[in-house]
Parts: sequence; structure tokens; C-alpha cells
Amino acid sequence: MRKGNLMSVREDVRVLDATLRDGGLCNNFRFSEEFVRALYKTNIKSGVDYMEFGYKADPDLFDTKESGPWKFCREEDLRAIVGDNPSGMKISVMADVERCNFRRDFLPKSESVIDMVRVACYIHQIPAALEMIGHLHELGYETTCNIMAVSQAGGNRIEEALTMLAGSAADVIYLVDSYGVFCPESASDLAMIYLRAAEEAGKKVGFHAHNNQNLAFANTIDTLSRGVSYLDATVQGMGRGAGNCAMELLLGFLKNPKYNLYSILTFIEKYMIPLRKSGVMWGFDLQYMFTGQLNRHPRDAMAFTAQGRGDYCEFYKELLDNE
Amino acid sequence: MRKGNLMSVREDVRVLDATLRDGGLCNNFRFSEEFVRALYKTNIKSGVDYMEFGYKADPDLFDTKESGPWKFCREEDLRAIVGDNPSGMKISVMADVERCNFRRDFLPKSESVIDMVRVACYIHQIPAALEMIGHLHELGYETTCNIMAVSQAGGNRIEEALTMLAGSAADVIYLVDSYGVFCPESASDLAMIYLRAAEEAGKKVGFHAHNNQNLAFANTIDTLSRGVSYLDATVQGMGRGAGNCAMELLLGFLKNPKYNLYSILTFIEKYMIPLRKSGVMWGFDLQYMFTGQLNRHPRDAMAFTAQGRGDYCEFYKELLDNE
Repeated sequence: MRKGNLMSVREDVRVLDATLRDGGLCNNFRFSEEFVRALYKTNIKSGVDYMEFGYKADPDLFDTKESGPWKFCREEDLRAIVGDNPSGMKISVMADVERCNFRRDFLPKSESVIDMVRVACYIHQIPAALEMIGHLHELGYETTCNIMAVSQAGGNRIEEALTMLAGSAADVIYLVDSYGVFCPESASDLAMIYLRAAEEAGKKVGFHAHNNQNLAFANTIDTLSRGVSYLDATVQGMGRGAGNCAMELLLGFLKNPKYNLYSILTFIEKYMIPLRKSGVMWGFDLQYMFTGQLNRHPRDAMAFTAQGRGDYCEFYKELLDNE
Repeated sequence: MRKGNLMSVREDVRVLDATLRDGGLCNNFRFSEEFVRALYKTNIKSGVDYMEFGYKADPDLFDTKESGPWKFCREEDLRAIVGDNPSGMKISVMADVERCNFRRDFLPKSESVIDMVRVACYIHQIPAALEMIGHLHELGYETTCNIMAVSQAGGNRIEEALTMLAGSAADVIYLVDSYGVFCPESASDLAMIYLRAAEEAGKKVGFHAHNNQNLAFANTIDTLSRGVSYLDATVQGMGRGAGNCAMELLLGFLKNPKYNLYSILTFIEKYMIPLRKSGVMWGFDLQYMFTGQLNRHPRDAMAFTAQGRGDYCEFYKELLDNE
């Protein structure tokens, strides 16, 4: 029940850098243009397959002055960084169901520098996601469907969702550990269910980890060994709350010589360490461990962090009281 | 190939707190008496099965003035904390082959508050370890053999060592990831080899993780699922360099209701956070990731940390140059 081995290269693997998108949730997408440009060059040098620039949020729903440009990923903002993207690396954006105007805001692929659109939805939004995926596929984009919060989906809803997606135009179905509740074994067990549904339909499976129990990297490589191909990571694990799978751990682990750790290290020294010093916060801590262990949305843990609280015991009791 | 499942209780599991021993390597075993006393009480309340107080180092080889008392674990120092240890929790110490005077410094078990002696050795020291284990078993102690640095043992030396240990009086054989090089899959594969040898001889297997690739907890629970019973952890992962498996992650994961997270949290708030603030350093960082990925002793990474260096790229190049 394993694909490849620990020494071999799996040609189906695709690494996606989501630093701007997941990391943008830590600083409201306010990265300097220099940072974004340097990350783009770094990712190309590192052999990263996809770089996700951010969300394609609906400017009618979200005030464009209250966030940096990467919440909206307008074509002109992307092109200001990548030009026509002459590199081999592909560009992706994420679009949340019901938070974007997908009929208005996506150009035909032939006119856009975007290669892939990742459609994020909750499990009850699968019909809406299918509509988006169909439209985006018609426009010429690669598409994925990222079903969030599946650790709280009861009964056989996951199987039903997978059956619906198997019949769609989506190229990749993503297993997403929104609450950071999985351990390698449970992530892999669920990945096998996704893989069965996807492979029959000629699709790939991706995995998106959260680090609430400090297992983001472990879960990523364990689902990889089962056959998951699309792997999300962010530099230094930058992402909301406990963050995500760290790109440097992942690239150091993968044996394909096309992946190169060195450029990422340079980027960390020059950009990530100063970013942290400037006060942007993310990473594993006890408050996220609690919400992960309890299979809860990390919002209370993020509030605990934002308030500068250190009374872990009290917070843990509060969580248990609200069980 | 799995023992139990993610919901059930495995009655064979034993959790060992090694905070004073592994953590002592961060502060030269200079814990306040209050800290040690509070940790002892915390471990009892948390349901921890064994508490390791430190090393039984030979005072003829190491200056007793240059380290705190837990490098030597004299009977009177132990008794000053635990009295006759009326709790159900057992007490262990570690003794390194060739660094202790085991014939002189261990009392008969009937006169000692120590329950278990863990004999640590490199693979070429197995004959010396067997001699120690035989003697300590005669004195009445539970014994383990912790073979260090096995990731660098070539050929079939591990199998040979396991065969020798299978014929010994050791109760537990420990798989030790000295260099933090394992991922869940490689740790589990090796654990299966240890389990085959140990179970035939009626022995248990333990796992001792290091967090160089941020996988200490993941590796611990993955080897557990294969049948490893003795699990080492330290509060907040305190230990040399990148540290060890964090007790709070492990207790939060285990389903046996005898384990209780709450007391550990109180201890963290009251003792561990101030300890870190006082300047004692440990935990995952890039320099340890490099040595873990390269299967190297972390000594260069520890020196990098001690020197307050932040030039990760330069350090990485130095490591590759010395390959």
C-alpha cells in the first residue's frame, strides 16, 4: 500500500508553495513587492511546481483597502511580478465558494497568467463548487477542489462528495486538514479513500496540512507515501495560527534532484526572519495543540495568541467547558 | 501490521518522562530542587509510568562540581525528592557504557529507590552493555538497552546486536533516533525489526525520538502503532539541540484515561516558560534540520546555536563541504 520508496523519485509529485496565500492570513496579505518578487524567483530556483499568489476574493464583498493585493490577485498585480511568467513554474490562485465572483473575475486562460484555480469549499457547498469548477475548466484553467473541515463531516458525506467530484472536471481533489486534527495514520487512511475515488476517475489527490499538533510535515510525507501527488507547503510553515507544512522540511525530504533547498534558505535568511521580527506571528504552540486535539476550529486559539495570553491551563479549561 | 487502533487503550504502553535527563543536557543538570520536586508531583498526577532523574555518571570521570546532581543521581539526592517513592510511578536512571562505575555505584535494588536502569551504548559496545545488564539484573533492577546512533550502523550489525540482546536479561530494547534522521515510515520499519527480535524473546521495545526534523512526536506515535510500548517524552520537548518528543503532545494523543494533560500544562506555565525565559535553549530550528536530513551528529548545529549564528546558508554549505 505504498507508492515508490524512501529513496526513489515519484514523477507525479507536484509541490505547491502557498506562502502568500496561507501566510497572507497572518498579515492581511500585506507583503512588500520586493518580498513577493524574491519569493517568485526563489520558488523557480527551488524547483517548486506551483506558486499560489493568494485569493481571488470578490471586491464587492471585501474592501480592497483593508487587505493587500494578494487577497484579490488581479491580473495586473500578478503581471507586475511575473510578466508573462516565462518560467516553467505554474501560477495558482484560490477561490472560495460564495466569496468570489467567478463569472466576472476570471479571464479566459488564454488571456491570463494564472494556470490553476483551486476551489475551496465546505462539504455542503459541493454543488456550488462543481458549478465553479465547470466554468473555470471551460475557461481553460486547471482546477482543484479543496474540501475544508472534513474532520467534522459525519456519516458517509465524504464518500458522497468524492463521488460527485469524481464526475467533475476537477484535475485534483485535495484532502485538507483544516483543524490540524490528523495524525499520520488518520491522514493516510483518509487519503486512501480520496485516492480510490480520484484514481478511478483519472484524477490526482493533494494534501494540505495544518500544524496544530506539530504534525503538518509528518502528515504530508505520510500521505505522499500512499500516493498523494500534490503537496502544499509554505516557507517556514507560515500560515494562520500554527501554520502549515514547512517548505524547507519538504524539499529536504524529497529525493528528486529538481528540488533545491539552498534558495529557500537564502530567502528565509533575507526575508522570513525579518518578517517574524517585524511582529508577524505564526507557528506551533500549546493553544493550537488543544484545538487540534479537540477537533475544533482554531479561532479561539488565534484569539488567545492575539490577546498575548499565556494562561494555557485556563484556556484549556475554557475549551473543555465549551465542548 | 498494527496493534490496537486510534481509539483504543493499549495496556502495554509505558510513558517515560526524560525531562531531567535529556533536558539536563541543556543546562548541565542544574535544575532547582523546587523544579525537580514539582516535576515529580506533576508526573505522578499525569499518570506517567516512569520518571528518569538523570544519569548515573562515574564521579571519578566527571567533576561533580561542574554539573548539577542529576548527572550522578546519588541515592541520597533521589531520596531527598521522592523519599521512599510511595507513588505508583517508577524511577529510572540512565547509565552510559564506559561512563559509569556500575559495579560500585549501584546498590542492590532492595536498598535503592531506583526501579529501572537504562543502559545506553553504541553498537560496538554491546558486549560491554550485556555485562552491565547482567549485573544490574542480578541486583534486581529492571533494565533496558538503548542502542544509540543506529542510523549509522551499516550492514547487518543491528540484527546482530538484537540477537545478542534477545539472549540477555534486558526487559526492554530501545530504538533510539540519536540524529533525528528518521521519518515515521523509516522509524516504523526499523521498529518492526526490533519488535520481531524482542517479542520472540519475551521483551518489549521502546522508542526514543529526537526532533531534528520536527518529527519526534510523529515518529513516536507511528512506532507506537506498530507495537512499541515504551515511549520517551520530555515536557515541551526539552532536550539537547532540537529536543525530544513533547510530553504534552503525547499525553494528548494517548486515549488511556489514566494519562492526564492538565497537570503538565500547569507545570509548563509555572516552570518551563520561566526556564526558557532564563536563557536555557532547545527546540527545532533549521540547523538541526540540516544535520537530521544529512544523518549527522547534531554537534555542529549545537555549536551554531551556542555561537548565536543566524547564517543558515553558510552553515549548510559548511556541512556539505564536510560531507
